[in-house]
Amino acid sequence: MLKKYLPILAWSKGYNRSILTDDLVAALIVTIMIIPQSLAYALLAGLPPEMGLYAAILPLMAYAMFGTSRALAVGPVAVVSLMTAAVVGDMALQGTAEYAAAAIALAMISGIILLVMGLFRLGFLVNFLSHPVISGFMTAATLIIATSQIKHIFGINASGSNLIALIGSLVQNVTDVNFVTLAIGATSIGILYWARTGMKPILVRYGINEKLAGILSKTGPIIVVVLTTAVTWAFGLAERGVSVVGTLPSGFPPFALPSFDMEIWGQLVGSAVLISIVGFVESISVAQTLAAKRRQQVSPDQELIGLGAANIASAFSGGYPVTGGLSRSMVNFDSGAKTPAAGGFTAVGVLVAAIFLTPLLFFLPKATLAAIIIVAVSSLLNFGSLKQTWHYSRTDFAAMAATIILTLTVGVELGIIAGVSVSIFLHLYRTSQPHSAIVGQVPGTEHFRNVNRHEVIVTPEIFTIRIDESLYFPNARFLEDKIYSAVASDDQIEHVVLMCSAVNFIDASALESLEAINERLGHLNVMLHLSEVKGPVMDRLKRSHFLEHLSGRVYLTQYDAVHTINPHVANRAMEMSRVE
Amino acid sequence: MLKKYLPILAWSKGYNRSILTDDLVAALIVTIMIIPQSLAYALLAGLPPEMGLYAAILPLMAYAMFGTSRALAVGPVAVVSLMTAAVVGDMALQGTAEYAAAAIALAMISGIILLVMGLFRLGFLVNFLSHPVISGFMTAATLIIATSQIKHIFGINASGSNLIALIGSLVQNVTDVNFVTLAIGATSIGILYWARTGMKPILVRYGINEKLAGILSKTGPIIVVVLTTAVTWAFGLAERGVSVVGTLPSGFPPFALPSFDMEIWGQLVGSAVLISIVGFVESISVAQTLAAKRRQQVSPDQELIGLGAANIASAFSGGYPVTGGLSRSMVNFDSGAKTPAAGGFTAVGVLVAAIFLTPLLFFLPKATLAAIIIVAVSSLLNFGSLKQTWHYSRTDFAAMAATIILTLTVGVELGIIAGVSVSIFLHLYRTSQPHSAIVGQVPGTEHFRNVNRHEVIVTPEIFTIRIDESLYFPNARFLEDKIYSAVASDDQIEHVVLMCSAVNFIDASALESLEAINERLGHLNVMLHLSEVKGPVMDRLKRSHFLEHLSGRVYLTQYDAVHTINPHVANRAMEMSRVE
Repeated sequence: MLKKYLPILAWSKGYNRSILTDDLVAALIVTIMIIPQSLAYALLAGLPPEMGLYAAILPLMAYAMFGTSRALAVGPVAVVSLMTAAVVGDMALQGTAEYAAAAIALAMISGIILLVMGLFRLGFLVNFLSHPVISGFMTAATLIIATSQIKHIFGINASGSNLIALIGSLVQNVTDVNFVTLAIGATSIGILYWARTGMKPILVRYGINEKLAGILSKTGPIIVVVLTTAVTWAFGLAERGVSVVGTLPSGFPPFALPSFDMEIWGQLVGSAVLISIVGFVESISVAQTLAAKRRQQVSPDQELIGLGAANIASAFSGGYPVTGGLSRSMVNFDSGAKTPAAGGFTAVGVLVAAIFLTPLLFFLPKATLAAIIIVAVSSLLNFGSLKQTWHYSRTDFAAMAATIILTLTVGVELGIIAGVSVSIFLHLYRTSQPHSAIVGQVPGTEHFRNVNRHEVIVTPEIFTIRIDESLYFPNARFLEDKIYSAVASDDQIEHVVLMCSAVNFIDASALESLEAINERLGHLNVMLHLSEVKGPVMDRLKRSHFLEHLSGRVYLTQYDAVHTINPHVANRAMEMSRVE
Repeated sequence: MLKKYLPILAWSKGYNRSILTDDLVAALIVTIMIIPQSLAYALLAGLPPEMGLYAAILPLMAYAMFGTSRALAVGPVAVVSLMTAAVVGDMALQGTAEYAAAAIALAMISGIILLVMGLFRLGFLVNFLSHPVISGFMTAATLIIATSQIKHIFGINASGSNLIALIGSLVQNVTDVNFVTLAIGATSIGILYWARTGMKPILVRYGINEKLAGILSKTGPIIVVVLTTAVTWAFGLAERGVSVVGTLPSGFPPFALPSFDMEIWGQLVGSAVLISIVGFVESISVAQTLAAKRRQQVSPDQELIGLGAANIASAFSGGYPVTGGLSRSMVNFDSGAKTPAAGGFTAVGVLVAAIFLTPLLFFLPKATLAAIIIVAVSSLLNFGSLKQTWHYSRTDFAAMAATIILTLTVGVELGIIAGVSVSIFLHLYRTSQPHSAIVGQVPGTEHFRNVNRHEVIVTPEIFTIRIDESLYFPNARFLEDKIYSAVASDDQIEHVVLMCSAVNFIDASALESLEAINERLGHLNVMLHLSEVKGPVMDRLKRSHFLEHLSGRVYLTQYDAVHTINPHVANRAMEMSRVE
């Protein structure tokens, strides 16, 4: 029991020196990567940079104790930072103490929501975010994130809660551009892109092995941070209008109780649910992909608990909402992390930085951090997925398009809500008018297939319809209409057979419809039969009075049904094959 | 085209004297029934009694032109009257001109909504009201309606928008009871119940034929109206505290434009959607039941247009929302109505009453009308349905219970919304964790069945799972978890076969999951295969890249799959039968 909720008790048993070495190496690399990222994402969230560092210390330790993924790297991530800015920005002005306090409270509430979802096994709620909605949201969020950072690259002011407002504001202020800042920003972007694509082949050519070269190519952010900070300091660029990070407090994270102001909590709780779900979806996908590579398992419910603990830890140490990040987790895995202890060691590394390195970051230009964000999120843009979804399913594309359009034009929260609503509505609409087929017997076999697709034998007295969907409230009336219109337009029909091979359940509404169909067909002396009803469906029907009232019978197979109702027809169909 | 939207053009062609006689007889009987009912339902809606009459004139003529049901009797009905009172009561005080104007506007908005739903074929929206929700709502509404009329029977004041408030108010004022009023009310209830149950056998015994006796037994309301009005007038009971209808305006309905105040429309439109849907559901069920008895058809989309026209007509002639009523339609059908013209003739009958009879209604006690309402709705109470639903499906019962509880304790609108939300949520929850079975080959056959239910042959290298549900976003992750946990816990597995016989569609989310499963199994050198994929599902898969990436193959049947992957096993299973 204890081991289930504290996975650290399980994996720490077999811990040895070799695993320790692997974890330490991975932790060192992730630490170098996470320091500039966490500063940058805090900037994206509209928070002081040190809050990014704080969100990368205690949360990692908490996840190391409660998490089940062996490679997930928890901490600040771009999308959750953007959502934090959107939510908290509605409540307080950026740069104020209230703004920071609301972000901390948001981490607390998200943590509690994740924890509760984990303890009550509510992880299935996450499933309502369909893949097209997530994918559309990520694309839209990436566009907003990248656009929101352009002001730092140009050294101008701009604001706006959606893409259109942002672009308008940027265009309005573009004449204020600071060219020194722009030079730093543009150079940083250039170096970062080069580190991603051009650096590895060169390192390999100089004899560095493939894996190490791959890991070194992820150090672009630390390179631009060191480089641009040094240049800004050496040439006194801060006096020439380059906006820098400035004084960061040194030392341990500020351990403190988050705000428990119920009014603030009331305003935040809805958004916290969305942030929790989006963060969890991002995290669990990475964790499952990495676990599968080593035939390991992650438990979704325990992951909720792990991320919940991480967020609560973040709230108690001056951080803001965190989750498992995609790129850092990949690096952690590739660098050889074997257990969640690697995350714990990373936390120690970030703590050391928070204590000793913050003075060195005084001259770090904000444009550099913006460049790091832009390059990091640009890899998330996936327009191909739009095209694929369009080809595969118009329904899914509609949900995706609704998410993208509303996220861009109105805001991140409404975008997700619209996407989920559209997916659910279109699913219900689709199942409300299910595929159905009038079937006949394939000559020489006991099979029954669609009369429109196959050469089959039908008999005018028996009308057989196969519904390719479970029967439940959205389509109960459809079934009634379908059968009445067939029977009303054809006087020869004496038997209606409902072929249920694709019916996975029948709810109370559909049962009511079946009873109505049975009764109304009875008035016309037409008998209703069922065939190929599945076990669980039959068990349930037996709990109702339907089978007692049914004018016809329930047949095991469609062949049985036709054979029993009208042996002559069935035999003729079989004989046709012998003649041929 | 014109005939489609104006069904009167179709049925009026064959109209002859014999049909005319039938329609006239039915119209006479329904007129006698509808006059007291429409006065009573107007009282229930909190409106002046004459508005009930107005709602039973022009709307019936409009429906006669646009409706497709040959027996539906349109007009004021109990549940819609209750909903009108609930909605309009939030906006204005009963008895004021604003209250009546809002009720008229509500009819106008409902009419437009129904018309739009009909023209754009949005009738499927009605399907989201599952049967347990309707049934629960009707039961709860009936309880509220009956309770709301008790004050008239006792001659006291009471008010409240939900059952608890109503009962509280009744108990508080019960000491003000007027015993003369109570005597009239109780006697009326007694006579009405007797007319329903005891009258017919007596009439039959006196030689009246069965059918006529049945129709006469529906005249209870007119009997009590005549009787109690006469007694009240003769004994001057109005001076002894018996509340009477009083002066009703005589003459034609007041033709006037309804209010087009956009603020009022904004407040009413949400409620109007609910009233329209509830009214349509009640109406279409009756219409379909009656049509089926004569092998006729009603067109749901045209019915929406017919009811829309009726409501708009009601708004232009001082009426309030109307729909097709259950009991009157049954009487209309039983009395021999052959075409919608019967409704037109009924309208003429009510018009005559509005012009000539209103002075006679001065001394009609409100207690009599309350008694008519109570007896009319009591037949809608259906607690048996609660029990049946509980036995058949806990999910449906939960939706029903939510509807009843919220309708009784909060209000009619929230009750319906809660019911619909609960039904949809529980449906999604159920399909998010679908039934699945690990299957093996039944010895001596080519069938594959659940390993837990049948003695089947399995081979440790091949893991076959059958999911009894379409694969879509709520269960996409479930599938991933299921397969990973099986493969992670069993090193022998070399092939995973997904048996898709019950999969009616695969959406983009599930496709993404299948791709992830395929890729992750690939890392472990486990091959993924599909079997028994349906035609439409396969067509769609071919539009994606999935089949190119699939490590295994798609097999027509599960037997094919196992036979091809490992011929030895399949043959062994077949041989076992020969040995036996």
